[in-house]
Amino acid sequence: MASLFICGCDVLRLNGGEPQIALQQDIEIRGSKIAAIGSDLPLPADAQMQVIEGQGLLAIPGLMNTHAHVPMVLFRGMVEDVSVQSWFNDYVFPLESNLTPEDVYWGALLGMAEMIENGVTSVADHYFFMDEVARAVETSGMRANLAWAVFGHQGEAQLDETCRFVERWQGKADGRITTWLGPHAPYTTGPDFLKLSAVRAKNLGVGIHIHVSETAEQVALSLQEHGITPVKMLAETGVLDVPAILGHCLYPTDEDVQILSRVSAGVAHAPKTYLKLGMGEIKLQRLLDAGVPVGLATDGAGSSNTLDILEQLRIMALVQKHAYQDPTTMPVGEALQIAFEGSAQVLQMGDSLGALAPGRFADIALLRQDGMHVFPRFDPAANLVYSSRGADVDTVICNGELLMQNRKLLTIDKEQVKKEISARLHRLSQRTPGKRIAVYPA
Amino acid sequence: MASLFICGCDVLRLNGGEPQIALQQDIEIRGSKIAAIGSDLPLPADAQMQVIEGQGLLAIPGLMNTHAHVPMVLFRGMVEDVSVQSWFNDYVFPLESNLTPEDVYWGALLGMAEMIENGVTSVADHYFFMDEVARAVETSGMRANLAWAVFGHQGEAQLDETCRFVERWQGKADGRITTWLGPHAPYTTGPDFLKLSAVRAKNLGVGIHIHVSETAEQVALSLQEHGITPVKMLAETGVLDVPAILGHCLYPTDEDVQILSRVSAGVAHAPKTYLKLGMGEIKLQRLLDAGVPVGLATDGAGSSNTLDILEQLRIMALVQKHAYQDPTTMPVGEALQIAFEGSAQVLQMGDSLGALAPGRFADIALLRQDGMHVFPRFDPAANLVYSSRGADVDTVICNGELLMQNRKLLTIDKEQVKKEISARLHRLSQRTPGKRIAVYPA
Repeated sequence: MASLFICGCDVLRLNGGEPQIALQQDIEIRGSKIAAIGSDLPLPADAQMQVIEGQGLLAIPGLMNTHAHVPMVLFRGMVEDVSVQSWFNDYVFPLESNLTPEDVYWGALLGMAEMIENGVTSVADHYFFMDEVARAVETSGMRANLAWAVFGHQGEAQLDETCRFVERWQGKADGRITTWLGPHAPYTTGPDFLKLSAVRAKNLGVGIHIHVSETAEQVALSLQEHGITPVKMLAETGVLDVPAILGHCLYPTDEDVQILSRVSAGVAHAPKTYLKLGMGEIKLQRLLDAGVPVGLATDGAGSSNTLDILEQLRIMALVQKHAYQDPTTMPVGEALQIAFEGSAQVLQMGDSLGALAPGRFADIALLRQDGMHVFPRFDPAANLVYSSRGADVDTVICNGELLMQNRKLLTIDKEQVKKEISARLHRLSQRTPGKRIAVYPA
Repeated sequence: MASLFICGCDVLRLNGGEPQIALQQDIEIRGSKIAAIGSDLPLPADAQMQVIEGQGLLAIPGLMNTHAHVPMVLFRGMVEDVSVQSWFNDYVFPLESNLTPEDVYWGALLGMAEMIENGVTSVADHYFFMDEVARAVETSGMRANLAWAVFGHQGEAQLDETCRFVERWQGKADGRITTWLGPHAPYTTGPDFLKLSAVRAKNLGVGIHIHVSETAEQVALSLQEHGITPVKMLAETGVLDVPAILGHCLYPTDEDVQILSRVSAGVAHAPKTYLKLGMGEIKLQRLLDAGVPVGLATDGAGSSNTLDILEQLRIMALVQKHAYQDPTTMPVGEALQIAFEGSAQVLQMGDSLGALAPGRFADIALLRQDGMHVFPRFDPAANLVYSSRGADVDTVICNGELLMQNRKLLTIDKEQVKKEISARLHRLSQRTPGKRIAVYPA
């Protein structure tokens, strides 16, 4: 059993929305879990114990990305400044039709390298060729909730394929992999397919990761075609009878929020994408007041260009103040609660992630605090939300294993990843007229 | 005369809003200016010529910060999650009453260290004890437009003090320093004081850097008290007869925009502050369509927490797409035009800054391009707006002099700056009831 001992780092504690920094703490890690945190812990007499100098570093819970399409980093910068319809139909869906399983593997590794460098230890990924993403999780050492996205037009046989993926990979990679089902969205599946998905999820004992109510148009279309909102369709088809990650959910009605408050579903919030695609905004207090968990997400780099959760954290807090035209909205502590406690709840791991405490998984990011941009350290929690950046992350631990130390990745060969992807870029950037994985409704 | 020769870097060119990356270019710098740019330039036979390896780096014009209160970095993180009125009256104005000239010097150096590390080579600073800021500019090697902020209640004698500052420092530091007048804002000075300021500026042959129309309330108050908007007050008092930097100008009327289109004034846009303080937004196309120059700014770190222009660039583009609910708004090229050409115009240096070309000042930032977060490099210009970050800046040149190389600051002793400021922090963070430098109208 691997063991780590972090000496003398500062530790972020949330204390119910009143963040505090505990100075000069030691963190003892045994296997995958935090064993103890305190000042001047005795260094265990254990030959296998690896000591990490934490002086000058701030320990935070490993950041969580609750909704991503990790391999889309392959398309970073390829689709800019177009409408949502064009983004899907002219670019992303045609580009994705080029992807092979091997492309997805290397794309997933690129995205995981970026996430680890940004202090992200967990990701809920929603894509296809997910065996390859699972293999990348094995390699990278991250923790992941993986769902194989499926469209209604792909039919029940493909849904069954995604069920077999769930069975193949559940609990693998030392327990770091959780597998769920991933019907794409109500508007791309329809109620019958959602019912089938819900039955399958119940039988498998897993949750469902799905996009819902991303735009006002989607809600209007659902009301017109089905007489109910997309969220209500999830409820009526049984999807919300299992744990659920709801990607975006920017346009829930008040009734939708009430529905969500009674089930085991959380909302994955990716504000950079919403700004960039002009999708509008949600006043998050509506969800928080109803007790609906909200977590941070990056969405895919095709829209958000990065897989950087600190960036999304900052944008979330800024946009909420803007949405309410009130600078007292979403204070620092509340933003951090969403980033840590909320994201852990969305991943259905509220008891094991999102805080640094004995018994929790040893998923930890250690941030340098010596940058001029985070000086003075009058309020390190405010610095974390408004001044820090991913490049401040020095060391990353997941499941008790070191993934990065002194900014050097230990599990991923960056040059190999770049070389593999470079050789594929020309093919990946082609678009064949009429060839696309799905069609976004106009 | 110092000379630099940058070998084999990529160079960003804007081409009227169609950004292109010229690959493998050499840049020859003679004295303060760019002498030549091209592929395979002959390396001059000059013993004094310092060669910089540019392979793998992207050269961009040095970033410009068109409106800042640099020494406010001393108060980073001290004032969070409060109303605008409280921000001024309960925190910032009381905190600023603690400042000594020496505090301002060290604060200015801290802010300049942060800016250089983020690729910023020019700043228009608006603060007090500006001789100290000028000394920090001498030390840091940056380029600066400096204005000593003055409130109406401080009277004509203090205005005259700021004129003497203009005379003392105009053109100093090898021409890197430009000095202007800095009446604080219409609502803190009033029309008579603005008239005096305009006359002084004309006599000195300098411009005026001023806050204007920051909130809807300020405009309403001006209409109520004076019957005209703050912008119109600037026009009627003669302020707009001289070159002007207008900090924020978030709420110009259509008539105001027409006024601004006919004068030599530019708007300094600091969107992170606007989000954070819930101040609302401006649709920038209104200004751009009228030909009013718009540049990027950070405002003070008391509100924006960083002095990071790449961050403001990204937020500007995202917020404009959000404001119009249209992802085609402000494409990458237009955002870069504002960052470079617009900012240079706002600084009244449109012919000498904001582009990399022979004859322009050698103000250059070289960014690393090997990060996973900016891979693939399908569109380096899109990466610059949506994926890069200040930490990617490797080397910074201003006025032909190296200020940072391989991320090591060459002009500022960071540890000394931190030590000096640490010794002052306890005193600086105190607030004495009733002691403040000014009062913000409720």
